[in-house]
Amino acid sequence: MSDEACEIILQPIGRRIELPAGVTILDAARQAGVELVALCGGEGVCGACRVRLMQGPLSPHTLTETDNLSDEDLAHGYRLACQAQVLGPVRLDIPPESLTTPQRLQLEGQDASLELAPVVTPLEVEVPQPSLDDLRSDLTRLTEAVAGLTPGALTFSRCVLADLSVKLRAHNWRVRLAIRQNEVVAVLPPHSPLYGLAVDVGSTKLAAYLVNLETGHTAAKLGAMNPQIAYGEDVISRITYANEHASGGSTLQARLVETLNQLAADLCAQSNIEIDQIVEAVVVGNTAMHHLFTGLPVRQLGVAPYVPAVSEAMQFPAREVGLKFAAGACVYLPPNIAGYVGADHVAMLLGASLIETPQTVIALDIGTNTEISLFHQGRHWSCSCASGPAFEGAHIQFGMRAAPGAIERVRIDDSEVQVYTIGEQPAVGLCGSGILDVVAELLRARLLDARGVLKGSHPRLRPNGSKTEFVLVRGEQSGVDRDVKVNRSDINEIQLAKGAIRAGIETLLAVAGIDDQVIDRFVVAGAFGTYLDLESAIRIGLFPDLPRDRFQQVGNAAGSGARRLLVSSRERQVADEIVKQVEYIELAGHLAFTSVYMNALAFPSA
Amino acid sequence: MSDEACEIILQPIGRRIELPAGVTILDAARQAGVELVALCGGEGVCGACRVRLMQGPLSPHTLTETDNLSDEDLAHGYRLACQAQVLGPVRLDIPPESLTTPQRLQLEGQDASLELAPVVTPLEVEVPQPSLDDLRSDLTRLTEAVAGLTPGALTFSRCVLADLSVKLRAHNWRVRLAIRQNEVVAVLPPHSPLYGLAVDVGSTKLAAYLVNLETGHTAAKLGAMNPQIAYGEDVISRITYANEHASGGSTLQARLVETLNQLAADLCAQSNIEIDQIVEAVVVGNTAMHHLFTGLPVRQLGVAPYVPAVSEAMQFPAREVGLKFAAGACVYLPPNIAGYVGADHVAMLLGASLIETPQTVIALDIGTNTEISLFHQGRHWSCSCASGPAFEGAHIQFGMRAAPGAIERVRIDDSEVQVYTIGEQPAVGLCGSGILDVVAELLRARLLDARGVLKGSHPRLRPNGSKTEFVLVRGEQSGVDRDVKVNRSDINEIQLAKGAIRAGIETLLAVAGIDDQVIDRFVVAGAFGTYLDLESAIRIGLFPDLPRDRFQQVGNAAGSGARRLLVSSRERQVADEIVKQVEYIELAGHLAFTSVYMNALAFPSA
Repeated sequence: MSDEACEIILQPIGRRIELPAGVTILDAARQAGVELVALCGGEGVCGACRVRLMQGPLSPHTLTETDNLSDEDLAHGYRLACQAQVLGPVRLDIPPESLTTPQRLQLEGQDASLELAPVVTPLEVEVPQPSLDDLRSDLTRLTEAVAGLTPGALTFSRCVLADLSVKLRAHNWRVRLAIRQNEVVAVLPPHSPLYGLAVDVGSTKLAAYLVNLETGHTAAKLGAMNPQIAYGEDVISRITYANEHASGGSTLQARLVETLNQLAADLCAQSNIEIDQIVEAVVVGNTAMHHLFTGLPVRQLGVAPYVPAVSEAMQFPAREVGLKFAAGACVYLPPNIAGYVGADHVAMLLGASLIETPQTVIALDIGTNTEISLFHQGRHWSCSCASGPAFEGAHIQFGMRAAPGAIERVRIDDSEVQVYTIGEQPAVGLCGSGILDVVAELLRARLLDARGVLKGSHPRLRPNGSKTEFVLVRGEQSGVDRDVKVNRSDINEIQLAKGAIRAGIETLLAVAGIDDQVIDRFVVAGAFGTYLDLESAIRIGLFPDLPRDRFQQVGNAAGSGARRLLVSSRERQVADEIVKQVEYIELAGHLAFTSVYMNALAFPSA
Repeated sequence: MSDEACEIILQPIGRRIELPAGVTILDAARQAGVELVALCGGEGVCGACRVRLMQGPLSPHTLTETDNLSDEDLAHGYRLACQAQVLGPVRLDIPPESLTTPQRLQLEGQDASLELAPVVTPLEVEVPQPSLDDLRSDLTRLTEAVAGLTPGALTFSRCVLADLSVKLRAHNWRVRLAIRQNEVVAVLPPHSPLYGLAVDVGSTKLAAYLVNLETGHTAAKLGAMNPQIAYGEDVISRITYANEHASGGSTLQARLVETLNQLAADLCAQSNIEIDQIVEAVVVGNTAMHHLFTGLPVRQLGVAPYVPAVSEAMQFPAREVGLKFAAGACVYLPPNIAGYVGADHVAMLLGASLIETPQTVIALDIGTNTEISLFHQGRHWSCSCASGPAFEGAHIQFGMRAAPGAIERVRIDDSEVQVYTIGEQPAVGLCGSGILDVVAELLRARLLDARGVLKGSHPRLRPNGSKTEFVLVRGEQSGVDRDVKVNRSDINEIQLAKGAIRAGIETLLAVAGIDDQVIDRFVVAGAFGTYLDLESAIRIGLFPDLPRDRFQQVGNAAGSGARRLLVSSRERQVADEIVKQVEYIELAGHLAFTSVYMNALAFPSA
């Protein structure tokens, strides 16, 4: 193999890169800034990084590829990007489901009213200029000018002092200070409004909000993919990446911070403000995202008993992790409940206004891990279930995330199948709400039994070797030259996921000694929770069969909670109280869990 | 001129580097890590960066070179490194006086006894391990283990938390915490002694001390050149460099921090301790060194009225400026008095135990700027005089710093001259104490009048064109093929320097309304102050003619003061008090100064 550089062309996005022969397509794409889905972190076991060779030489198929790709795929030139090495100039086609972007992002959440009590407040100051008769240092003249105007003596970090002399002169000795608990975090032109940034860091998606700290108004919001996806789809593969690479944790942190800086810059540009008007930030995420962002170790999160390094609320200068806001801006992160019930769950509970509720409430956010809280008679229990990534489209033959071309709604009648795709694009796969619908519709049409076996007859039900499969979209129909279909193993993945979540709900109810019918409110947060069809979720047994008006799909409540934590120091105290009072139930240590789980696996009878 | 790389060989040190043609020798040496003296910051006006071409092509002589180098030098192949460009492979010889290293360093200072009260203290802790029955986070289990053992709740910075989980496990859940005002700054193996680093950052030299915080014992000390010298010899040329280059200030900071990290690593290796046992640092320097080290702007230090950005004591995490000590170690810097009376002067006053003295005391540290304090009847005045770099060997034809081969003592008798060089090496130039001696001996031998004119007759006194010069060492005598000599302009530089210093002393005495004979103690600090000959200093009028037992040469008192500040929080309070109580006298604004200065310029009659 020669050392000569080969031109690698990635279509349809049109990125080109020259790299030495021998590089894998996954590495080449990373180096070109194109992030492919690598659910398993590039180990070759997930089969998600499918790309199609259009032209040029690649290394021979590996056993991993022949195991993971169908004969049809192999015949059409599909390869696994993590396996195939580039041997010369190549042109590759990347199907949308293998790209981590674009994707539908969930930004909306409910905004309950809240008394403003931001931790950073402004103070206008005029400072006398130095002269031969007044040789005081710039800091001395400033602190003496504000003496008596603040409850305590002001303090200044080195980074704020580094700019002070220049800013006093630039603004002609009149400035606005942004003050956080007596510490000056920014020196701004007179009358500059103060802003904060609230960010929900999901394993998959980021949602960022620019909030005016003086009015509480959200000036702008933006979403983005979590760039860490290129290093592993889920929390476990990122923990593995961090453990197995010398500076793996720093890489994951740096990529996230880059994206947060870009989001902040874009939000400021949209709102026509300067980046140093961002004087405070709140970041919420699950415990692993929290630890990777803050630079805490994650190794102990990956091994029993899965304890966090830190559960307490954290705050530190934003610059310490490379965030470029006002020189002294701090980042606050609410406390974590446990290794797998993170600060984002706390934020969700705040965002959905569940604290000190007199009602009996279940609140959950479905993901690879699903965190569930139960409030009942002044007590609060929480747990985490390993629900797996099936509802994010992973481990499903035609699964994909909620990107254009993903089927999100399905209706099956006696002879036909209707599908609705995101962006009304030709169907390329199924996202979470689509898979949920398929299973529910197969149950409704009596084409599926309680154990998850396809049965009966339907024009779309057909054998494929020893397996039976249900064709949702025929290739010739969709314009994409592949059928989109589900088989029993896809359905089993959904069974495992919904079984885990339902078992978590039932375990919490059992701990509280109550029946599901006493639940007054059933709060479903998060993107999948927003888009899922409630009837389908109840039909497959994911949720208990309660009167429909008790259900509440609240959108990105973690983002709403993050914004509340940004504008109210009182909410930060509440967050601490939640973590002090919650009773965390470790399902792995809970005796009844296994039998509850076995019961929850079966589908309800139609 | 081709783009091809030329090999550049720097002798006698034997460094080689390949660089494109067109590079100046000064830049090439910098890139090779060889620091040449560039008093003027590479502007071509100081003539200090003399190197000798041994072989290969350089660009033609510039006018700057023909102006600054003698015909003899030009004939011998001497060039100015900042002017001559490399046009092909070259071999260059760098004379010792053009190298910034090696040089004699002043480390010793008096150590007065002191009650230990370090700001960082140790606490041994045993922490219970996590289990399925104890899922508390690592931080929670640690804080609960120490509850009640400390006066307040412990706090932890993000950087300390980043290591906590790993260290608890590595040390089998038994650790020693280093605690600073309730903040944990290091998590160490059980029973690790805590150390601190005290550094005196001079414009020219660094002195670093590793101190055991539990015993107060200085375990090791090391000196080094200030690497910023390569960017300009004195404070003004460094301020110019910082102002005129986009990231000039950061470059100067980074170079200093690199050297401090290396000194710390070397000190730890000498003492067989780990770098993270350094849990606190004290840095003292003049106001410009202070600002460049802390990342404060220096522009306003370079223009009237020369105010510091910050005069208050500063403390911040060492990691913020790139210092690699314990994760949470802080750096403390005592307060500055004024733009040209810095924190090093405060440290010197502490080191020489002058605070609250009942005596009448003058204390000074001679440098390019000479800071002077006068204590009298419970009051304290200070001033700074622009004494210039003559006593550091600059602006003197054969001046050099105190490196091997520098003449440091001179005796002139009727027919001969005796010189003593550092390291007993062949004489290559004159360092500060040598120049002082020459002038004093010329006065004693009546070869110099009060105005600084060479007169009389002596075998070594000879005309050179229109000028008269005094030959100290003949080339054939020294083994170096150049004479070492002084002329009237050298003597005038000494006149200006001693005049400025003496005028400062006289002005402070005048402000206090006292005569020099009431001075009980006359304290001379610093390297030049240690090596100068007291009789010579009095003879030329640098110091008043007091009984000799009132003089005290205290060595590096700033370094001693830095060590006191390291081991005693009480000394830090005293430093704040000094700056609150001192009356700073701005000589530029002092009406009588000019006439005092004019009087001080003349040499005393023999």
